[in-house]
Formats: sequence, C-alpha cells, structure tokens
Amino acid sequence: MSIIAQGATIPAADVKENAPDSTSPLELKGKNVLIGVPGAFTTPCNGHLPEFIAKYDEFKAKGVNNVYVFAVNDTFVTKAWKEFLAPEGTGVRFIADDQGKFVSSLGLQLDATGLLGGLRSKRWAIIADDDKVSKIFVEDAPPNVTVTAAGALLKEL
Amino acid sequence: MSIIAQGATIPAADVKENAPDSTSPLELKGKNVLIGVPGAFTTPCNGHLPEFIAKYDEFKAKGVNNVYVFAVNDTFVTKAWKEFLAPEGTGVRFIADDQGKFVSSLGLQLDATGLLGGLRSKRWAIIADDDKVSKIFVEDAPPNVTVTAAGALLKEL
Repeated sequence: MSIIAQGATIPAADVKENAPDSTSPLELKGKNVLIGVPGAFTTPCNGHLPEFIAKYDEFKAKGVNNVYVFAVNDTFVTKAWKEFLAPEGTGVRFIADDQGKFVSSLGLQLDATGLLGGLRSKRWAIIADDDKVSKIFVEDAPPNVTVTAAGALLKEL
Repeated sequence: MSIIAQGATIPAADVKENAPDSTSPLELKGKNVLIGVPGAFTTPCNGHLPEFIAKYDEFKAKGVNNVYVFAVNDTFVTKAWKEFLAPEGTGVRFIADDQGKFVSSLGLQLDATGLLGGLRSKRWAIIADDDKVSKIFVEDAPPNVTVTAAGALLKEL
C-alpha cells in the first residue's frame, strides 16, 4: 500500500511497549509525535534519537502528549535500547512493532532483508492531531536524518 | 525439516558477525561448540550466556576452537548484546543469523511470532567435530537452561 497521506486517519493499533505478551491500544488524543526508525542499535538510529530525548521537554512545552518511537524489534530489544540511550530514563515511549503490522498499516514498511534480516520501518515522522495525520515526513533514504530530526519537527509544531 | 541428528553434517553457511553487509564462511575445524538462543536481550538468554563468557577458558582448555552463539537478530543487536554481556570483551563469538537461515538449516528454528514477532531459534547446543554433530542438546522449552548450560556442556567435552 502507499504511504499514508496528510489528513488521513491513522489506523487503530494494539501495540507492545513493556512486555512481549501484552498489548494496549495506541493512544492518539490531542497532539502526538510518532517516529519510525529502521532498527534498534543501528548507527543512524543511535544518532537520531538522542535529540528527541534531550529535547523531550520542548515537545511537551509545545503541547505534545507523547513522543512515540516505533521500531520493528521485539520488546526486549526496544527496552534494552531505551536503557542504552537514556540510562536515566526518558518520557519518550519506545514501541515494539515486532511483527511490523503498525508500520505496514501506514505504508511505511521497509524491506531490510539484506542488512537486517527482514521487514523493518522506513525512517519517518508524523505529527498527529488525534488520529489524523497533520504532517508527515519520510526520509528519502533510511540512514538519513534530516526532515525527521527532532529540531526540524519542533519547528513544525 | 527435522532437527539435525548426531553424526550428521552441519550445512556450510556464510554468517554475519561484525557487519550487516559482510558474511564469511562459518569455520568448523576440529572441536567447536555451537549454541542457539531465542533472542538477544531476552531474560532467559541474558541468564544463559554469562556462564559461557565466565567459563570460556575452560572450553579452550578442553580443546574447543570456538564457542559460537547464534541468534536470529541483526548484527547491530548481537553486537550491542555482546557489549552488554561482556563489556570487557570475550572470546565467545556472537553470530547474527538475521534471516534465520542457519538455524533453519539445522531444523532448529522456532516460531516466536507471538512474543518476539517472527522466526527465531530454539535453545540448543551442538558439540561439533569438524562439520559433524558429535552431540546435540535441545531444551524442551525455549526458556529453559538445563542441558545447554555451559557447565553441562563442559562435562560432555
């Protein structure tokens, strides 16, 4: 399917955050920022996310309820990655889209079989108002961090 | 396919260890120990491997050339996991069977779609003489660490 468009409705999803065997509905009330990344612990993603962690309070100050990071990794890996990136904790929420269903429902899946073994996510960012796509940014190449950088998104809020 | 049997030949494989875009033939000369685990950073696997790291010299003293750990994870994750488990380094070699081809060639794949999102590895250990299976041990349930524990394997060498 094609990439979800501005104005479209983000499909309802049950997501995993803290445990491999429990899901909860993705909450999208008010303003939220959603980020998708190709892979936990990859070099570009290790470079991408610290700015979100460092500037989390700036997102909150702009009325953002949650900053969600989606990776097609399991919960053990996303939790270890979160602890690696933010050993003192962060409000940024790491979501394990372990089967890639959510990113695929947005048309933002990435075939990374060659480098990472299977289906992953493109690098993208969505500013959502409730469950509607207010703005969407997708990197031309997954390693790039330009339009999806925290600083760039803060200017769009 | 069924699980590889004692005496059978381990299929030749090109494996990834240090980089996502380079493979090298798995070296199986003389005596080697091969371990398969369901997932990097999972609780049981975090408990399973430290004993191999701690007792690595005992394996070497028994004439083992390499202790290989196979996980169906990408190289970024296996490398991060190795650094997490052995921050000061280890001779244990972590192999990223990112597509699960090698464990599947042994009949040791595990459908972990529910908890981990896709195909993974059972928990198993093989003592190999050259490319022949000298002894093979497979846990009845993947979280268990009994017949595949480092101490148990050292007694089999």
